[in-house]
Parts: sequence; structure tokens; C-alpha cells
Amino acid sequence: MAPTPSWVKTLTPQGPQGAELLQQERDRSDVAVDKLAELIHTKEVLERQQRVLAIMQPEKVFDKSLSHSMSRTERITKSLAKAKRLHQLSQQHKWSQDDFFMANNLLSEPTPYGLHASMFLVTLREQCTPEQRKLFLERAESYEIIGCYAQTELGHGSNVRGLETTATWDPTDKTFTIHSPSLTASKWWIGSLGRTANHAVVMAQLMIGGKNYGPHPFIVQIRDMKTHEPLENVHVGDIGPKFGYNTMDNGFLLFNHIKIPHVNMLARFCSVDPATSKYVRPANMSLVYGTMTWVRSNIVLDAGSVLARGVTIATRYCAIRRQFQDNDAPSTETGENQVLNYKMVQYRILPLLAASFALHFTGRRMMELYDENQALMKTKDKSSGMKGVALLADLHATSCGLKALGSTVAGEGLEVCRRACGGHGYSSHSGIGPFYADYLPNLTWEGDNYMLTQQVARYLLKSARAVLQNKGTDNDTCRILQDFLQRQDMGAAFDVLDNDADIVAAFAWRAAYLTFEAVKRRDVEKRSWNSLLVDFWRLSTAHSQYLVIKNFYEAVSSSATASTLNDSPTASILHNLFRLHALYTLENEAADFFTSGAVTTRQITLARTKAVPRLLDEIRPHSIRLVDSWKFPDWQLDSSLGRYDGKVYVDLFRRANEENPVNALTFDPYPWNNVLLKNPKPSKL
Amino acid sequence: MAPTPSWVKTLTPQGPQGAELLQQERDRSDVAVDKLAELIHTKEVLERQQRVLAIMQPEKVFDKSLSHSMSRTERITKSLAKAKRLHQLSQQHKWSQDDFFMANNLLSEPTPYGLHASMFLVTLREQCTPEQRKLFLERAESYEIIGCYAQTELGHGSNVRGLETTATWDPTDKTFTIHSPSLTASKWWIGSLGRTANHAVVMAQLMIGGKNYGPHPFIVQIRDMKTHEPLENVHVGDIGPKFGYNTMDNGFLLFNHIKIPHVNMLARFCSVDPATSKYVRPANMSLVYGTMTWVRSNIVLDAGSVLARGVTIATRYCAIRRQFQDNDAPSTETGENQVLNYKMVQYRILPLLAASFALHFTGRRMMELYDENQALMKTKDKSSGMKGVALLADLHATSCGLKALGSTVAGEGLEVCRRACGGHGYSSHSGIGPFYADYLPNLTWEGDNYMLTQQVARYLLKSARAVLQNKGTDNDTCRILQDFLQRQDMGAAFDVLDNDADIVAAFAWRAAYLTFEAVKRRDVEKRSWNSLLVDFWRLSTAHSQYLVIKNFYEAVSSSATASTLNDSPTASILHNLFRLHALYTLENEAADFFTSGAVTTRQITLARTKAVPRLLDEIRPHSIRLVDSWKFPDWQLDSSLGRYDGKVYVDLFRRANEENPVNALTFDPYPWNNVLLKNPKPSKL
Repeated sequence: MAPTPSWVKTLTPQGPQGAELLQQERDRSDVAVDKLAELIHTKEVLERQQRVLAIMQPEKVFDKSLSHSMSRTERITKSLAKAKRLHQLSQQHKWSQDDFFMANNLLSEPTPYGLHASMFLVTLREQCTPEQRKLFLERAESYEIIGCYAQTELGHGSNVRGLETTATWDPTDKTFTIHSPSLTASKWWIGSLGRTANHAVVMAQLMIGGKNYGPHPFIVQIRDMKTHEPLENVHVGDIGPKFGYNTMDNGFLLFNHIKIPHVNMLARFCSVDPATSKYVRPANMSLVYGTMTWVRSNIVLDAGSVLARGVTIATRYCAIRRQFQDNDAPSTETGENQVLNYKMVQYRILPLLAASFALHFTGRRMMELYDENQALMKTKDKSSGMKGVALLADLHATSCGLKALGSTVAGEGLEVCRRACGGHGYSSHSGIGPFYADYLPNLTWEGDNYMLTQQVARYLLKSARAVLQNKGTDNDTCRILQDFLQRQDMGAAFDVLDNDADIVAAFAWRAAYLTFEAVKRRDVEKRSWNSLLVDFWRLSTAHSQYLVIKNFYEAVSSSATASTLNDSPTASILHNLFRLHALYTLENEAADFFTSGAVTTRQITLARTKAVPRLLDEIRPHSIRLVDSWKFPDWQLDSSLGRYDGKVYVDLFRRANEENPVNALTFDPYPWNNVLLKNPKPSKL
Repeated sequence: MAPTPSWVKTLTPQGPQGAELLQQERDRSDVAVDKLAELIHTKEVLERQQRVLAIMQPEKVFDKSLSHSMSRTERITKSLAKAKRLHQLSQQHKWSQDDFFMANNLLSEPTPYGLHASMFLVTLREQCTPEQRKLFLERAESYEIIGCYAQTELGHGSNVRGLETTATWDPTDKTFTIHSPSLTASKWWIGSLGRTANHAVVMAQLMIGGKNYGPHPFIVQIRDMKTHEPLENVHVGDIGPKFGYNTMDNGFLLFNHIKIPHVNMLARFCSVDPATSKYVRPANMSLVYGTMTWVRSNIVLDAGSVLARGVTIATRYCAIRRQFQDNDAPSTETGENQVLNYKMVQYRILPLLAASFALHFTGRRMMELYDENQALMKTKDKSSGMKGVALLADLHATSCGLKALGSTVAGEGLEVCRRACGGHGYSSHSGIGPFYADYLPNLTWEGDNYMLTQQVARYLLKSARAVLQNKGTDNDTCRILQDFLQRQDMGAAFDVLDNDADIVAAFAWRAAYLTFEAVKRRDVEKRSWNSLLVDFWRLSTAHSQYLVIKNFYEAVSSSATASTLNDSPTASILHNLFRLHALYTLENEAADFFTSGAVTTRQITLARTKAVPRLLDEIRPHSIRLVDSWKFPDWQLDSSLGRYDGKVYVDLFRRANEENPVNALTFDPYPWNNVLLKNPKPSKL
């Protein structure tokens, strides 16, 4: 387009400037940003962030400016270049795994190496025999083998047992034949498969002598190591554009009777004896459960910071954006009101700010429990080991429910943040939309969020039956069920307005009440499983909300928090965030709370009309410093609206004016003429 | 990529095929699809759809296959070509305005002509004097002038009075000077402005002799009529990529003291007398209110079919997708269960199916009321005229609330439909994601959905105060407030489980209760306006839900419906949809209903545990025929998952395999090499 005229260059936004407004916000709060950041992230992580960012930011290959204008072919090609450069830097600077994950997090873009660096390597590390580690893992770690994890099929998602791909053992030549018997057997959605991988871990039904032994992992070469063309009888490609994740080559894969040697069945747990053709059973499946628990706990932990990212952007922009005057303002007052001063905006954003802390602390606690439990299970002491197994069952179930709740709250919360930014929220430069679209798969993968709630319900039903027979395990779930049974006849009447411990107890009471209601329907009324799915979903949500509330409460009340903050104002603001999260959740789930008798209807009404509005008032002055404490670098946010310096309008204008290939086009606007008057120069993208 | 091997071409999906499953669904329901379609759309509209579709579908320019893989420059250039072809076809086939809108609806893509063909022409038609019609409107209708409507600014959205752009009257040369005093004064988000328009209707503060008369519309030429380059002292361009709407050139626009002649102020209502420099006031603003009411009623009407589109896709796909066996199924049963049989899936989709009918009938009723009212106001009879004005105030307020509710339900409902499709919902070929992203601006424009609720609350407060003083108007709003006051002391106790009229009454009761609660807080407790914004939002939602329930009830009970359907099974299924919509809404808003005493807690519990599940059971067998009745052509849906013929997997595979430019790339996967092994041929896009 035409060069920017000089008269445009002199223009500045109408005052007060964003920078002034954010400075005022920061001046009037006493939240200890650095200490709170340390509590959220630890010193080590903050140091890592700075160190890795300093290496990445100057590299031109990581430039984010034109991403959202590119075609898919341009985007994915650029993204592979970024992935390669990340790998090079990782080698050059001898990055640890944590450094490497931090780098990917700062880049905030799925790359074609993504599944190689995660699921593929993890699977090989866990499921290879020592011989296979040499053969596959070492070559994969040096990026000679580039792989993916091929489980899902075109017609088969959550139900792994329904997979169609077969691996048929041939005792005569000691091989497996991998085959796709139909179109729906095509592997589908497999990250890094479409254009990048030369190998795949393929989940296939193991067939020995006509008998199906269920899905097992096999490593299969799919492309030539030199030409990168698909091997004969392999049909592979990218599945096409998606709502987000367009820098990843999610792929499809079909096999036509491909033979692989015996060593290609990943055999650390299960195997086929080549001499006898006998299937060798796994000794202990709990390690597999452990990994799933770890993956889901990570999604819960991420959910907190994912949400915090959207909240950071929306809170900063709503402190800068000004619209209308307060309806009650004296008519002599001029100037518009900061949008963040409106109660309706506070009611949309600040509970999400609170939820981001709640999910983060919950995810942290889940990871700790996981580590403690892994340690327990590794001891030789038998009673510790059994305790570990019992805890693992609890951890597994709770991580399912928390994954479902956490990713739903984060995903839907990002969209609330986007809308709270008004029209500009819709611009890609808000930094929320593209991030939201890339995040959404979390609600579906690693167990669809609705599907998972059945696992939680199944576990709670089992626990409740045990408690009813006085055979409850020594864990928190059985404890809250036991407590409910004991107090049930007296009733609850928790004082959620004045007593924080009572808030936790009220959430426990409601979860326990819904559990026993479900037991009654299933075991006494003999209702079908299918007819109870909606109840189970509600039950799982209630139980997971209880866990989040409990973990948040324990985190804000802990001695570690007290010693890190060592500062009463910040600690008491954290307590307010806890109360806001809890009471906001309570009033939005009011029906359960009054039906269960956990709380009186009067308390619910007071929570809605008095307590929540008062908490919004109390948190409002600290909101900018609270989001500052999450310490998202501007480079990571890639948001005009969420800039730390508040220069929102200058940045939006600069990007529109300078970073927009559409402005190179000169249309011929008349309907009977050709489309373009001037053909733009070939794009440099 | 490599050609498809012959062994792949022989593959079909694992049975039963989608086509068989949909046929079974259609066979087992007696819904009269064609009669119901006629009730939804009218015969005339259905005929129009077929006629226009037959013209468009063979035109290669409208091909949708590669849209989601293109860069923004490619997409927007293609979209202008589509817009031009639509205009040509419109001339060639002498399309009416309704035909033309139908064509755009079938195309389902915003084009760069979009704002010219709507807001620009509408504004000129409404606000031009006869002289101006000749000068501007006629040339705009022949596409010599291509225009846009430039109101919103970079720093100013909803608050029109805060606009910064000025139009200063110069009595010496009888001109206005249009000027942008700061960067935030830049017009922003203006559709069709970025690359296409050569003129703009600019909303600017009219300044006469140093006094500000508020925002008024001026027509300003911005680009050269031949070269299409911006005129001197005009800076204009596209604002960049967005979450959706990327085929539209939303633009920015800055003026440096541009002079325009007196005739360029659109002067049908307000004007400046060139002789005296006196401002001439508008006689009657109600026509402007009328237009806004019409625009918002249209959004409500659209919301129904927008949602129905997502529901059509999700329902069809969930009848074809099979996952797991029913938990209680005998172990001898083989094969997986249709996802639509799961209660959790029904509970997510079927209430949205019901809501699509509810919103559609409500929108239709709003349009009728608007037309009746316009007729009333045009009569010379004074009492009819006054009745019209009173009705208009009611219509205006209710259309605000319904716009907010309807577009929120539709927008959020589309995302629920997308997620209900599992992993494949995330593919662009689901047809939901891109459509959802293009729809989302409806939640923000024409009044942000949260902002609008204040207008509803203000009107309800005013009505309640009038009723309290026995000065209520003769309209429905005052009637329900009056009824509530009369029965308040007796209590309500409506039987929502067995009596449809009581359902409507319960929703009216709750809305009235919340209105008087708000009056008490504002007038008695003297609470600040700001502190009540959340209450106002809840109140507006409650009142709008009442209107939807009432309109849906009246539609299903009307004699027109009975005579069109003339068939009891379909009519009774419609009644079930009404009940499902009402009781689902009631149980999800339970707190309001029990607090207001509209319904006992026992009825709410029964609605949740018995009535809603039973309605889901009753509607389930008819769900495919119910979505068929919306009659979306496959070409419009552009969805592999929502195809009428059920060939989901074949189509997903074909698109991945044949319509995917990414598969032309050959990556070099090794981190130390270049990115591409083979450079693809230059894209033909």
C-alpha cells in the first residue's frame, strides 16, 4: 500500500494513554508481584524463562508477525523451520528437557516435531526392551528416526478396543503383518504424521493364530530415509485444515499388508514368544495408569496458566479501554470510565482470574501426589506398595475428573476473555483467538471431557459401596463419603460466608450427596447406566470442583505460601481469590447446594447479592498486579491488547498498517471488471 | 503427493454404512418433513432456495473446496471475485433483494461487497434527500459508487457519543471539513473499507460555530474512481487477520482536514441551513429506532437457523458415529452403539434442536410485530399512532434482550455442536468451526450482548414503576408485571410438568419477580446503577427467555401451525420440543425459579430427573427428520459430517486426499537440513 503519510506519523491516541492507566493501576496496589510470581512458578522456572527467551527472541525464524495471514502450506513450512531451529538451539545450548519445553511454550505454536518430541519418544522410552532402545530410541533421540504415535483411526476415537488395524503374527517367518482392512481403519489425526515422520508407533490389534489379543504398539517405518517418499503399500498424508493447530501436520495412514520383523513389536510389557508363538502377558499395568495420570495432571496444571494468559490480556485491556460514563456519575464529570470498573466486566473476568490460580495450585498438588505415589510404589515395603496402588486408583480417577473440569474451564474461559475485549477481541492481534483455537483440542483428546466423567462416577460409586459396607479405603474420597453418612441426619448448615473451612466442607458435602444419590439410582432403583450419564457428569463435576476448592484452600493456607509471601497484604488477597472462586462456583451451581442441604437458600442468596460483589470490589484494585504476577513475556502473548506497557492502540495500528499483506492488493472494485488492478509482488512468505 | 494407490481406491468404511444408518433413522419416524419445512420457511422461500442454488452451484467461482487452506490475500481476492459474480448473476436473472440475500446465505461467506450491499445502501435509502438520492444512491445502486458505513473508531465502539472524528461547518465556503484529531479517531473494523470502497458514510461530530451537535452521517469519497488509490489526506487500509470474517476487508480510515461540499451531509432528518448556518433538528427519531429493532429482530430470526445448521451437522454425524457398547448391553451383543443413543449426547444436542425452533418462531413473531407496528404508525389515526409509539418502545426493548439472548445461545450452541462431533468436529470439514468463527461477531456488534441488557432493564424498571403507580401501558410487559402484583401474596405454584400454559406463566412470574427485586434495589435501597449490572443482565435474560417460551408456545399452538401440519404426530413432536426447551431452560436456571417461588423445588427436581429425560427419549427417534426439515442443502453446509447421504468417512478421506495443498509439500525431516526436499509447484490458488 501507499507509504504512511507524514501527518499520520504524528498522531497519538487520545489521552489518557494506556501506559499512564496501567501505571496508576500498578501504583495503587501493594501486591508483591515478584514474590507472588515465585510462589506461582518457583525461582528456577522464572530464571529459565528469562534465559531461554533471551536466546529465542533475537532469532528471525521465530518472528510471529505474519503467521495469521499465511496459507496453510506457508505456515506449516515455516513451523518446521522453527522446530528445526529449536532443536539446533537445544543442542547448542545443551538445553534440559525442561528448557526445551519452556522454549516451545514461549513459541506458543504446535510444530511438526511436536509429537516426535513428546508421545513418540515417551512411548519408546517406556515400552522398548533394551535391544529396542538401541535399535529405535537412540536413533529417535538423534532425530534420525522421526516418529509419531498412531492410535486414533478415522472411524475410531475414544474406544481403543474398537481399532481396526491388525498386526498378524506369522510364525513361519517370525513377522507381523500390519494391515488396514477398511477405509475407517485409516489412522487419522496423528500429529507429525502427515508430512514429517518417517516412522510411526502403530496401535494395532495383535492377532495370533486367529485370536485377537487386543491393541498393542508396533514400530513401523513409513517413509524412505532418503527421499522421504512413502514406502510401497503405505498411503500417508496430511488430513487438511482445522479450527486451529494448522502448523501441525495431523495425518492419515493406511497399510496394505506391510511386513515388519518380530523386534518391531514394542515388548517391554507384552510380547510374542517367537519360538512358541505364545502371547506373554503384562506383569503390572499400573505403570501405564501412572503415565495417563501424569499426562492428565499436566493438563490440569496447564489449564491454570492457559486461562491466566487470556485473563492477563483481558484485564490489561479492560483497564485501558474506556467506554461511557458511569450512569450515576455527576454530569459535570467528563471522560469515559475504564471498562474494568463496570461490575458486569468484573463479574466476567475476575472469577476467571481466581480460577486460574485455583487450577494451577490444584495441578501442582496433583503432580506432587503423583510423585509421592510413584515413590511409594517403588519401595520394596509391601504395605507401602499396597497403599500406593490404592492411592493410584484414587489419583487416576480424580485426574480424569480434573482434566475434564480444568480444560473446560480454561477453554471456555478464554472465549469469555476474548468477548470481554469487545470488538478488538475478535482481531487475531488480541492474541486470544488463535491461542484459544490451538487450545481447544485439550477438551477432546486424552479422554473426551464428557466421556471421562463416567470413569470418575464409576470410581465414586465403587467407593460409596465400599463405605456403605464399612470397607472404605484410607483416602480422601472415602473420608468425605464417610463424613457425609455420619452427619447426614443432623444436616449440614455450613457457614460459607464467614468460614473458609466450611466452604470446603460444603463442596465435599454436595459431592458426597450426589454420589449416594447416584448409588441409589443405580443400585436400588436399578436404572440403566445410559439413563444416568447426565447425573454422572454432574457428579464428576461436583467432585472435581470440590477437589479444586480443597487444593486452592490448602495452597493459600499453607506454610510454604506464608513463608514465600511473608507479606500480609498479598496473602490476604490470595485468600480473597479463594473465596471468590468458591462462592462464584457455589452461586452458579446453586441448585445442587440447596437440594443437598449443604447450604441454606438464604446463604446462597447472600453469596450472590453481597459476598461476591464485595469480593469483586476488594480484588479490583489489585487485578493488574495479580495478572503481572503470572509474568507472561510480551513476546509470548503476541497481543496488542495485553501488552505490559499498555500501548494498545499504537500497536494495533502499527500491525494493521505495516504487517498486513492484504494491503499490498489493489482491488478493482467494479463488478464488471477483473478483480485486481495491480497484481501484488509475489509474496515473500 | 503420490497418486492414490489402487488398493486404497477399493477400500470402503467398516459397516454399517452412514447411508444405511440415516435411512433407518428416516424410516422409523413419521415426522412430515416437507410440511414442517413449509411451516419453518414457507413454500415461497423453499422454492427460492432451489432456484438460486441451481444457478450458483455449477459456477466454478463459488467452489468452496480450498478456502480453509488459503492465505488471507488469496481468500479475500477469491471472495471479491465471488461477490462480483453474484452481482452479475443478480442482474442477469433479475434477482429480487430476497433472492440476492438467499444467494449470499447459500454462499455462506462474507464478501468484500457485504457492507456496500447492506448498511451503505440502507443508510443512503433512509437518510438521503431526493437530491442526494440522485447524486449518491443511484450511483451506489449501479455499483459506480462502492461504499461502506464508517462509525466505529479504534478507541470508540459502543459509545457513539464518544466518537472523535469531526465534521466542522465552514460558512464561508459552505463546506464541512472531516478530520481525525488523533490515532484513536481512526475509523476501525469498517467492513468493505479496507480494499474495496471508494466512498464511505462517515459518522462524525457535527461542529457549527464551535458547538458540538453530536454524531451525524456524511458521505465522503476516499479513493480515486479510476486508479482506486486513496485520495490525498486520506489514509486507509485493511486492519489485518481476525478470528473469522477473513474474506471481508474490515478497514481503518484517517482524514487530514478533508473538505466536502454541503450536499454530502445526509440530510433527510437533520441538516445545516447553508444560508444561516443553523442546525435543523430531526422531527421524529422513532424511524431510527424502528430500523434498529428490525436489524435486531433479524439477528434473532437468523439465530434460529444458524443454530439449526450446527444441530443438523451434529445430529446427523452422531447418528452415524458409533463408539463403545452400551454399558448394560449383554456381552453377546457385538458392534458399537450410535453416539446419538447416549443420554449425555442427547442432553447436549436435542435441547439445542428445540432452541433452534424456539428462536426461529420468536424471530418470526418479532418481524410480524414490527410490520404491524410500522403499519400502525403510518396511519393518520392519532390513537393508533400513539399505540404504535407505545408498542415500539416495548418492541425496541424486547428486541435488544432477544438479540443478546438469541445470538449467545446460537454462538455458544454451535461450539457445543462442534464438540459433540468429537475429534472430527475440529476439522474444518466439519463445517461448524469456520461458520462459528464467522458468526461470533453477532455477539458483539449491533450492541454488545452484555451492554444491551442494560437497555432491557431500564425499560423493565420504567414499566414496573408505571405499574406500581397504576399507569401501566396496554402491552404484554405491563400485563405480566400487573399479574404478578395481584397474585404475589397468594404465591404461584405453577404446574410446569403437566400444563403447558403454566410453563409460560412460570417464566413470566420469574421475570416479573426479578423486575420488582431490581426496582427495590434501585429505588428503595438506592443501590448504584453499576452495582446492579449483574442483576440487570440476569433480569434481561429471564425476560427474554420468557418471550422465547411464550412465542414458541403460541407458534406450536397456533391454528396456522395446525393447518400447515394437518397431521397430529408432527404437531405433537413440536409440542415436545417446546416442553424440552422450556424445562431444560428451567432446570438450568433453577435458582431463580425457586427463589421467586414460581415453581416448587420438587417440580424442579422432577423436571431434571424425569421430565427432561423422558422428552429426550420421545424426541430421539425423530431427530434426523427434524433436522432434515430445516432443508439445508449440502452445498451450503459444506460439511463432511453433516451430509444428507451420510457418507461421512468417504468424504473426509476424499477431502484429505484430494483437496489439500499441504500434501504437495515434501519435507526434509532432519533438523540439520533445509526444510523442503521438493519445492512444490507454485500454488494455483
